[in-house]
Amino acid sequence: MRPEWLDAPLAEPSEKHRQEALNRQGQLTKPPGSLGVLEKIAVDFAGWQNKMMPELESLKVVVFAGDHGVVESGVSAFPQSVTVEMVKNFSRGGAAITVLAKHLEALFEVVDVGTANDPGPLPGVVSSRVGAGTADMSKGAAMDEKQLYAALEAGRQAAIRGNEEGVQLLVGGEMGIGNTTAAAAVGSVLTGLSPALMAGPGTGLDSTGVANKALIIQKAIDENSPDAKDPLSVLRKVGGFELAALSGFYITSAQLGIPILVDGFITTSAALAAVKLRPELADWMLFAHLSEEPGHSALLAAIGGQALVDLEMRLGEGSGAAVAVPLLKMACSLHSEMATFAQAGVSQG
Amino acid sequence: MRPEWLDAPLAEPSEKHRQEALNRQGQLTKPPGSLGVLEKIAVDFAGWQNKMMPELESLKVVVFAGDHGVVESGVSAFPQSVTVEMVKNFSRGGAAITVLAKHLEALFEVVDVGTANDPGPLPGVVSSRVGAGTADMSKGAAMDEKQLYAALEAGRQAAIRGNEEGVQLLVGGEMGIGNTTAAAAVGSVLTGLSPALMAGPGTGLDSTGVANKALIIQKAIDENSPDAKDPLSVLRKVGGFELAALSGFYITSAQLGIPILVDGFITTSAALAAVKLRPELADWMLFAHLSEEPGHSALLAAIGGQALVDLEMRLGEGSGAAVAVPLLKMACSLHSEMATFAQAGVSQG
Repeated sequence: MRPEWLDAPLAEPSEKHRQEALNRQGQLTKPPGSLGVLEKIAVDFAGWQNKMMPELESLKVVVFAGDHGVVESGVSAFPQSVTVEMVKNFSRGGAAITVLAKHLEALFEVVDVGTANDPGPLPGVVSSRVGAGTADMSKGAAMDEKQLYAALEAGRQAAIRGNEEGVQLLVGGEMGIGNTTAAAAVGSVLTGLSPALMAGPGTGLDSTGVANKALIIQKAIDENSPDAKDPLSVLRKVGGFELAALSGFYITSAQLGIPILVDGFITTSAALAAVKLRPELADWMLFAHLSEEPGHSALLAAIGGQALVDLEMRLGEGSGAAVAVPLLKMACSLHSEMATFAQAGVSQG
Repeated sequence: MRPEWLDAPLAEPSEKHRQEALNRQGQLTKPPGSLGVLEKIAVDFAGWQNKMMPELESLKVVVFAGDHGVVESGVSAFPQSVTVEMVKNFSRGGAAITVLAKHLEALFEVVDVGTANDPGPLPGVVSSRVGAGTADMSKGAAMDEKQLYAALEAGRQAAIRGNEEGVQLLVGGEMGIGNTTAAAAVGSVLTGLSPALMAGPGTGLDSTGVANKALIIQKAIDENSPDAKDPLSVLRKVGGFELAALSGFYITSAQLGIPILVDGFITTSAALAAVKLRPELADWMLFAHLSEEPGHSALLAAIGGQALVDLEMRLGEGSGAAVAVPLLKMACSLHSEMATFAQAGVSQG
């Protein structure tokens, strides 16, 4: 049965504090609007934190890991074993996202939602296994309803843990060989764009590989007939455990009043599914970067989101979100610490 | 007499260490190239620091302040008094760049190269005054040769101070009501593009104001006939004290082997003048952001530089450079701290 919490109300950003922050921006010692996007970010945080002078001190990065049965059809440049190998690499701090999380002094957690092989207990890894990887979506549904709800719940619990730790921002990341295929399938169904427009090189396919990947996605869509108006069924039929977990993570985060920084292609596909379920969720999201994965811009457009930076990244893990975090911190610092024209005795234009 | 140091050799980035770093990037636990621009930045720093594992721990931001006689012709939305008022605001820590420098734990200094009124001794402000603002370039040369060389020297001394403090990156910023007019004039002469393409709103002109600004720039160019092949004379005739200081700052920085992060429109015009003098200087430069000022992209193109981020900023002071600094730090951290495939036992694609 569809979990009730999916339909529970989201928190509402405070329009009053947004207006107060907007007014403050006009009084700071700079030409009005000259801090560009940083001004908008500060105003967003004022609304999210219900105060005119927001701050961003604490955040958490959660990487959801899962495997994909469709990998058997040859959709990735890397073997499936890499998913668990990378989970171990996260646990030991050797991966890009762990280096970045340390640099940002962010809380960090990996949630194993269902890798092909259970890595067993590892430091910093929460086991919320829904299965040993999804089924091959080109031959049937990627998962059953019970697995879908368990994956959504795994994401929900991660957001609840972050809230208990008092973080002011949640960043979702993912690891899963084959998950650009699942993300492209979900994105293709939800946007109505063809798999050929959504499929990309992922970890490094050549053009033949990408064409094959698009064919397999089309096969999965034909096989499963997912209904674009039912995002949950799309996640179940052609998604993945970590995608469903991310969707649950995002919805719960907004229910708890914690803003979300969305990473790249895969996380944006999960964000789109979640926004299709709960359109007001978009008010709690910032979009960190434009991925090199070609379908990403269409997913962003479908949400109405704009990426903060474009650094030609395509790694996933939450890495593109992590590199944008300092921009959010600086936006809040500028907003709260700059002098006003009156305070500084500076003439206005 | 043209200062001899202008022609002294620049340091040379180490090709050997660039290659070693490039090789290391291919061994880190990520799909090759997936960190995009961050990989290139790490390789650049390896060449600049002569080591495979570069780091970016210490940096200095220097804001050069000067006034502009051309302001009498009505080219700015703010009164000239704001230049000195903002110097005081920098000194007290209330301006955008000072908030950012504090956030970045960067060394910070203001160099007064010639504001209209001498603010007298202020904490954190170095007095290297070349005059009480430039002359009105629409009626003759902005400065004489002696002033030009003194302004270049003021920039040089700031880079030397940074080197003595052991910094690994220098960021130049600027403050000067009217300096987008001077920067547009310099940029127009050096690129050959018309003032109408180079003039922008600056601190907030409307379209009539921008059109008037372009006319005044054209008048200044007609009056002075600057020679595009002689960048020093361009800086002297239609530039500004802080522009010349920035050019000297950049050249000296590269002579000392310290890489440079260029800010926005005004600093890029000074960077272009310096690169026209010393083309190999471009090898020591990163370009932080694309300014909203419409002429900026043409200046970047003339240097062959690519901005790291576009946040719709147009404040100056070095603020656009400051917000990009964390990207450089994270690029170095990722490069030096990530595990290799061999170290992590992760299978390669």
